[in-house]
Amino acid sequence: MTEDYTTHPNLAKIKIVLIETSHPGNIGAVARAMKNMGLSQLVLVNPKEYPSQVASARASSAADVLNSAQVFATLEEAVAGCQVVVGASARLRKVSWPQMDVRETAAMAMQITDAQDGQIAILFGREDSGLSNLEMDKCHYLAHIPSNPHYSSLNIAAAVQVFAYEFLMAANLKNEAELKGYKHDLATAEQLEGFYQHLQQGLIDIAFLETAKNTRFMRRMRRLFNRAQLDVRELDILRGILTAAQRQAQKLKSLLESKDV
Amino acid sequence: MTEDYTTHPNLAKIKIVLIETSHPGNIGAVARAMKNMGLSQLVLVNPKEYPSQVASARASSAADVLNSAQVFATLEEAVAGCQVVVGASARLRKVSWPQMDVRETAAMAMQITDAQDGQIAILFGREDSGLSNLEMDKCHYLAHIPSNPHYSSLNIAAAVQVFAYEFLMAANLKNEAELKGYKHDLATAEQLEGFYQHLQQGLIDIAFLETAKNTRFMRRMRRLFNRAQLDVRELDILRGILTAAQRQAQKLKSLLESKDV
Repeated sequence: MTEDYTTHPNLAKIKIVLIETSHPGNIGAVARAMKNMGLSQLVLVNPKEYPSQVASARASSAADVLNSAQVFATLEEAVAGCQVVVGASARLRKVSWPQMDVRETAAMAMQITDAQDGQIAILFGREDSGLSNLEMDKCHYLAHIPSNPHYSSLNIAAAVQVFAYEFLMAANLKNEAELKGYKHDLATAEQLEGFYQHLQQGLIDIAFLETAKNTRFMRRMRRLFNRAQLDVRELDILRGILTAAQRQAQKLKSLLESKDV
Repeated sequence: MTEDYTTHPNLAKIKIVLIETSHPGNIGAVARAMKNMGLSQLVLVNPKEYPSQVASARASSAADVLNSAQVFATLEEAVAGCQVVVGASARLRKVSWPQMDVRETAAMAMQITDAQDGQIAILFGREDSGLSNLEMDKCHYLAHIPSNPHYSSLNIAAAVQVFAYEFLMAANLKNEAELKGYKHDLATAEQLEGFYQHLQQGLIDIAFLETAKNTRFMRRMRRLFNRAQLDVRELDILRGILTAAQRQAQKLKSLLESKDV
């Protein structure tokens, strides 16, 4: 095991799995990218050359991550114990696979690694040919790195750098929230759906929205609040605000009705 | 000039400036990272070795970006014509400089490059010693890459990769918004401030908030809406909702007062 240099327990549970990497320099560069971003678990499946002087030179001060890499002959062994396996891909694939971008992958990784034994593996394929179809069959999700459509093939260490950066950003956001004295799970899709229903009804009640023809408007609201990645406490607050506004509207309505009588 | 392969006009106006890079392989890797993310303007200040076979090999299919790099003897020439100059730094510096992280830098880059002649330069210092104090004096902002505090020194191509990735993500978000038929600028700090004032008053008016003791609550709201990166149209909508709720509360208040009379 590597020394515990990371301040993020979630990052310690993320495995970077390199499959049949050809160039040892890339393995070293991956180790450096990982350590720079606080990741420590490097897993190699049938590397062409490891250990290697070239890898060590490129790893720079990440010798600990490089030297403690786990090496396996098969992908099955490499991902044993991982709840979720994600295949990294430079481009969106026309397959019926659940697909995410890197940022979405990082959000998912935080949720999975919050569980005591929660581990996630991110697979990176060969430099020239990526992941095989059989390897993709082992993936629960595919994650693509948004890129120039005319040149979407990133160097493998560059690809790992992008993932590792998003993992650290997600962990930092989480830490920041915890340091500020609140620690709440992100709202689930179901909870968000409840909020959007409540929002729509609330906006109708306060006479902001008409009952019909608000599909496009509500889509815009969904986009806005989805971007904010609400936690459960924030969701409660927003619903509390809606309820307060609805209460005023309800009182007004009752009063107007009683006047009519 | 390189061929026009990017679908993002904003990305074409971002200059990646490498200062006195020692290893030509790094220059090649930077060119590849740039092209992968749709950037094209590479600027070299006193490179140790350029052109170089090693650089070309590492650039892979980004030979066009590498070969069309502009080379200058001084930083002044390199950043001529740029409205904003940002110095990239692995760590937060204890200097009285405006500092941003990479994501914030990308948001700023989109705003600047929206202007017809708007250009922004991101400076990357030497592999071993970074930017000198004199070079930092030329920067309007410093941008740091969040990283492992115990090993914060990224390879220069990895650092460029992270910036370029955030630029592409910001450009994609912008494009997506434009494709969906609305194109709005991000709200300015001043507009956001107006919204937060309005939000606070609105929440008091609908009896959700008490007048006093809401500093912590409002900080939480700011964090939530800052994360969402509101555009001006969304801000207008949210203020419209507040106004509708305030109107109901005001009517209720008037009615209750007229009853008392």
